[in-house]
Amino acid sequence: MLCFVNDYSQGAHEQILKRLSDINREPQTAYGRDQYCESAKEKIRAACQSPQADIFFLVGGTQTNATVINSLLRPYEGVLSADTGHIAAHEAGAIEHTGHKVLTLPHRQGKIDAEQLKAYLKAFYQDETYDHMVIPGMVYLSHPTEYGTLYTKRELEEIGAVCREYSLRLYLDGARLGYGLVSPGTDVTLPVIAQCCDAFYIGGTKVGALFGEAVVFPKKAPAHFFTHVKQHGALLAKGWLLGLQFDTLFTDRLYWRIGEHAMEAAQELVRVFEEKQYPFFLKSPTNQQFVILENSRMKSLAQKVSFSVWAPQDENHTVVRFVTSWATRPEDIEALRQLL
Amino acid sequence: MLCFVNDYSQGAHEQILKRLSDINREPQTAYGRDQYCESAKEKIRAACQSPQADIFFLVGGTQTNATVINSLLRPYEGVLSADTGHIAAHEAGAIEHTGHKVLTLPHRQGKIDAEQLKAYLKAFYQDETYDHMVIPGMVYLSHPTEYGTLYTKRELEEIGAVCREYSLRLYLDGARLGYGLVSPGTDVTLPVIAQCCDAFYIGGTKVGALFGEAVVFPKKAPAHFFTHVKQHGALLAKGWLLGLQFDTLFTDRLYWRIGEHAMEAAQELVRVFEEKQYPFFLKSPTNQQFVILENSRMKSLAQKVSFSVWAPQDENHTVVRFVTSWATRPEDIEALRQLL
Amino acid sequence: MLCFVNDYSQGAHEQILKRLSDINREPQTAYGRDQYCESAKEKIRAACQSPQADIFFLVGGTQTNATVINSLLRPYEGVLSADTGHIAAHEAGAIEHTGHKVLTLPHRQGKIDAEQLKAYLKAFYQDETYDHMVIPGMVYLSHPTEYGTLYTKRELEEIGAVCREYSLRLYLDGARLGYGLVSPGTDVTLPVIAQCCDAFYIGGTKVGALFGEAVVFPKKAPAHFFTHVKQHGALLAKGWLLGLQFDTLFTDRLYWRIGEHAMEAAQELVRVFEEKQYPFFLKSPTNQQFVILENSRMKSLAQKVSFSVWAPQDENHTVVRFVTSWATRPEDIEALRQLL
Amino acid sequence: MLCFVNDYSQGAHEQILKRLSDINREPQTAYGRDQYCESAKEKIRAACQSPQADIFFLVGGTQTNATVINSLLRPYEGVLSADTGHIAAHEAGAIEHTGHKVLTLPHRQGKIDAEQLKAYLKAFYQDETYDHMVIPGMVYLSHPTEYGTLYTKRELEEIGAVCREYSLRLYLDGARLGYGLVSPGTDVTLPVIAQCCDAFYIGGTKVGALFGEAVVFPKKAPAHFFTHVKQHGALLAKGWLLGLQFDTLFTDRLYWRIGEHAMEAAQELVRVFEEKQYPFFLKSPTNQQFVILENSRMKSLAQKVSFSVWAPQDENHTVVRFVTSWATRPEDIEALRQLL
Repeated sequence: MLCFVNDYSQGAHEQILKRLSDINREPQTAYGRDQYCESAKEKIRAACQSPQADIFFLVGGTQTNATVINSLLRPYEGVLSADTGHIAAHEAGAIEHTGHKVLTLPHRQGKIDAEQLKAYLKAFYQDETYDHMVIPGMVYLSHPTEYGTLYTKRELEEIGAVCREYSLRLYLDGARLGYGLVSPGTDVTLPVIAQCCDAFYIGGTKVGALFGEAVVFPKKAPAHFFTHVKQHGALLAKGWLLGLQFDTLFTDRLYWRIGEHAMEAAQELVRVFEEKQYPFFLKSPTNQQFVILENSRMKSLAQKVSFSVWAPQDENHTVVRFVTSWATRPEDIEALRQLL
Repeated sequence: MLCFVNDYSQGAHEQILKRLSDINREPQTAYGRDQYCESAKEKIRAACQSPQADIFFLVGGTQTNATVINSLLRPYEGVLSADTGHIAAHEAGAIEHTGHKVLTLPHRQGKIDAEQLKAYLKAFYQDETYDHMVIPGMVYLSHPTEYGTLYTKRELEEIGAVCREYSLRLYLDGARLGYGLVSPGTDVTLPVIAQCCDAFYIGGTKVGALFGEAVVFPKKAPAHFFTHVKQHGALLAKGWLLGLQFDTLFTDRLYWRIGEHAMEAAQELVRVFEEKQYPFFLKSPTNQQFVILENSRMKSLAQKVSFSVWAPQDENHTVVRFVTSWATRPEDIEALRQLL
Repeated sequence: MLCFVNDYSQGAHEQILKRLSDINREPQTAYGRDQYCESAKEKIRAACQSPQADIFFLVGGTQTNATVINSLLRPYEGVLSADTGHIAAHEAGAIEHTGHKVLTLPHRQGKIDAEQLKAYLKAFYQDETYDHMVIPGMVYLSHPTEYGTLYTKRELEEIGAVCREYSLRLYLDGARLGYGLVSPGTDVTLPVIAQCCDAFYIGGTKVGALFGEAVVFPKKAPAHFFTHVKQHGALLAKGWLLGLQFDTLFTDRLYWRIGEHAMEAAQELVRVFEEKQYPFFLKSPTNQQFVILENSRMKSLAQKVSFSVWAPQDENHTVVRFVTSWATRPEDIEALRQLL
Repeated sequence: MLCFVNDYSQGAHEQILKRLSDINREPQTAYGRDQYCESAKEKIRAACQSPQADIFFLVGGTQTNATVINSLLRPYEGVLSADTGHIAAHEAGAIEHTGHKVLTLPHRQGKIDAEQLKAYLKAFYQDETYDHMVIPGMVYLSHPTEYGTLYTKRELEEIGAVCREYSLRLYLDGARLGYGLVSPGTDVTLPVIAQCCDAFYIGGTKVGALFGEAVVFPKKAPAHFFTHVKQHGALLAKGWLLGLQFDTLFTDRLYWRIGEHAMEAAQELVRVFEEKQYPFFLKSPTNQQFVILENSRMKSLAQKVSFSVWAPQDENHTVVRFVTSWATRPEDIEALRQLL
């Protein structure tokens, strides 16, 4: 079975496994207070050009979103998100579980923009009854988005400016950030993100780690963030497992190299689909590609290849998603080419 | 530095690491719907003699406690615990974060008993104003307890009977269950626990896994427990990492063998302390041992050995805790002996 | 200043005040366990033809919605509502504060229908990832809606049938129910509502009481609902103040007579606006009427009459809302007529 | 039936009822933005000698406690209370429902003191694992306490000093404050409370109002406290009902006169019990008196007098509580005297 269903279907980049194995019997301080976490934090601070940043390592994305958002909002505040945002649609109400409403804005290919944000906020504060409503306290973006689309530096900066104007915090979900950082489709870099955002996370789970997300507060973490993490059940006892993985990812550009590998595979995938004349729903600048399949073709293909069913296109066609990762090999794409 | 500070200071039993490495590039279904999870569940069901049990794998203990307790309580209900219980004292309010009060009972070496439970419930329902108070909906036990003490089969059954009488659910936190299962100090087995409890978890993090806890509902899980897990940010994308670890632990009695290894080391530790005439605060029947150190002795020892400071004993003495694990070697104990 | 801004701008129907005064020094059992609550409950049960109904009296609408919804949902469930629903827009996130997401459906003049509901639920359960999303557990309706529109018996029954098919509970917010019950625009009666819904409330605050809402569970209240109410801070110490008001409202059809009074005033209002040739945004079958005012006209009128600004219609016009109540007098409408 | 069961068994002081009746048809701005609320706030600010105080009116005590505490704590913080505190014991987990743990300290006749508070905080921060625990963020006191006991100015100031030292907020529950303000047993006045506390409430429900509690933030309310109130379902639509009551209570010292009336009755009650040689469990300096009754005597008395059963004293005796209020008449006490 060929696997293009997502970028978290296999274990971890071999260098990560190797280092975990190497230090297996070395006693460590628990709860992320070990040397590997410290080393990883230093490397991430350098990569973000944020020498003062507070950094924490959590296990997964939904957990990270809920913990960070809950720590940055006051009880009466909500978080603005594209209606397709992960927190709005696919986290089983984890944000509402912490007492906060997700306020949605209509997306454009997964993105929102400064203009619509400003229009929303202006209308909100013009409404005489606004204090009977959930006060917007934060903007949530993901980069890449659910559609594999990307923000530009200018778009991020404009959104950041609106946030400052209306006293909103800006938070960026980087579950697949590694693919965004190497994409030719954007000029957004880690220092740009650190400049614009109050908090963001650098995704490990979908970019070659076994698991793990690095939360960065470029200025300063909320008071007692460690205790927030514990309260959310998000504190890993053997925290060095996270630190060591990020230390490895941020050594010798491994995080970027993993992204580049997957991006090359994704471009090859595009070429194969073009060659076979499959129509695209969306050619993304990242490692996710969306093509339209005739339904019976989809069913027969699904016998030999795993991919995601995205949405019905019309009665006889379906949008499906193919994803590449650190683990995609040239022979996988060639095998797919044979099947198409 | 000799390490006796806890049983989660090192990675994982080598067999676990090896299998993770072996299947690293094998594509898996995400979110715990893979073959390794299935296989591990079957083995756990067999070990519990509970062929109908619903089983889920989560990452850590606090997360597991919060998710299970929240899923089994109605909003107005609280959970009864020894005042030393982990949920009462050391989870940063994770249970209260889900809206539920932890109702405490005074402990005896970490344990509570059926009699005091019954007295509490009787008094509660005799109070005319009980419906202005938090209704007890669950009993939380840990086995071994925070003090390394253990319940007997009879004690568990008696507590279970009181729970049924008052419509409480019974939940057992088995963070260190592996040490309890092999201790000569109790006749409690997995089938006994499955018989008595509505839910319990078999701890992996502290018993030789990298991380992971196996939640067992011997009768039936609460509806949509998978979604509960997701909502709590407790769903691991690469769920097979958990399944594979528990599959390994439940193959060829590895879980018990790890327990036995640590217990032998703990008994050796006791002999060393006895030989050196250190007074015991508590000789536990498990892998935690509590001795009393003179304070200046404690400080000098701490330069070469890591252990936990438990509580002051008097002005000049402190209770400290030494813990053994899968990773404790005979030479570690011999080295400690030299230092004492 | 003429007052048409809403139906809760004045105290209470004089009969209510009189009775409160009459029993002022009579000692009562606290927390709603008095004879007046009992008497009111009996009268409401009779009016609903629901002899088994469990009934509770709460103080206000948002409080009632949060308490009832929280008591009927499991933690992982959300509540479906029109996007204009009060719980979705104007309760400051009170539902999310209890941990539950409000899932919205596009409204038609404040209403949703069985067909769109069914389409949503069908699509939801067809989505392979539905268990990563908030499971719909309830439908929230209001009758009359925010737009003063009404459901028919058939519409309610159809929605009820979809709810039963998908195991959703059906809850109806009757903040302004008194106006719906006497409107010629619907055949929905209290027994019809009791037949269709799992829970609903009969609004007092907006229908002639000082405050108070009567929650009706036609079959059975959730276990320990009294404690739910207390936990939500919604238990009134002097509960008889609520019982006595509802006892008065349900004696000699006072609740209906208040509705009829306001409806006659609303119809007179319509005639006045028609006579003066003001365009209607919506002619509602209840006590709320929506007309379109030219902006400068609106401003000058606002000097002498209070009304609600609803929404901008175009650059030069605004939709405004006029509301009648138990306290609207013929001379108020005549005075308005003079001003138009 | 003679009524000494509590101070909220009857309606309201007649002056309050009269004014409610007087303005019944006067249109008011909703949600507490009316002239009566403004007037009441000015009078309360003057009485507290806190010209900058932010003041809000809520309906009941549990609601007020949950709303204020939730608004002043960060998510990871808990509130310290005497173990007999109302929030700890008799609010059905309303505080935990907002996600915060109530941390308890052993009481002395309902009180805690600065010394034990400081000892707790010192030990807490000395514990190496404190960031795995609930961080104390607030101290909750009630004055009078559940036992009718009172703090002195010095005690309050000392507690306030510890709070400042450890960055805790200090909150005082004044459900029965009116009785404390007139008691010879303390030198605590409203200005003293305003000086020491970050927030407190002046109770109306138990001191002659139909309902209502005035929340005072002597320095400044938390941002968007109005929206907090709405989110908690604690915003009364007809807010002027609260403002008018407090305006009346704070006109011509009515609040104090009600307190004095009840205190005189309580002293008369003490004399009667002394004359009849009933032993006291506690002679409180407020309107609650605790005597010990032989059980069969208690049962026969309960046929003709209502009082509260407090706790068993021994096998044959019970502690019971008698309470006076604005509504207690000399003839009630004389009638009781006859029965004793």
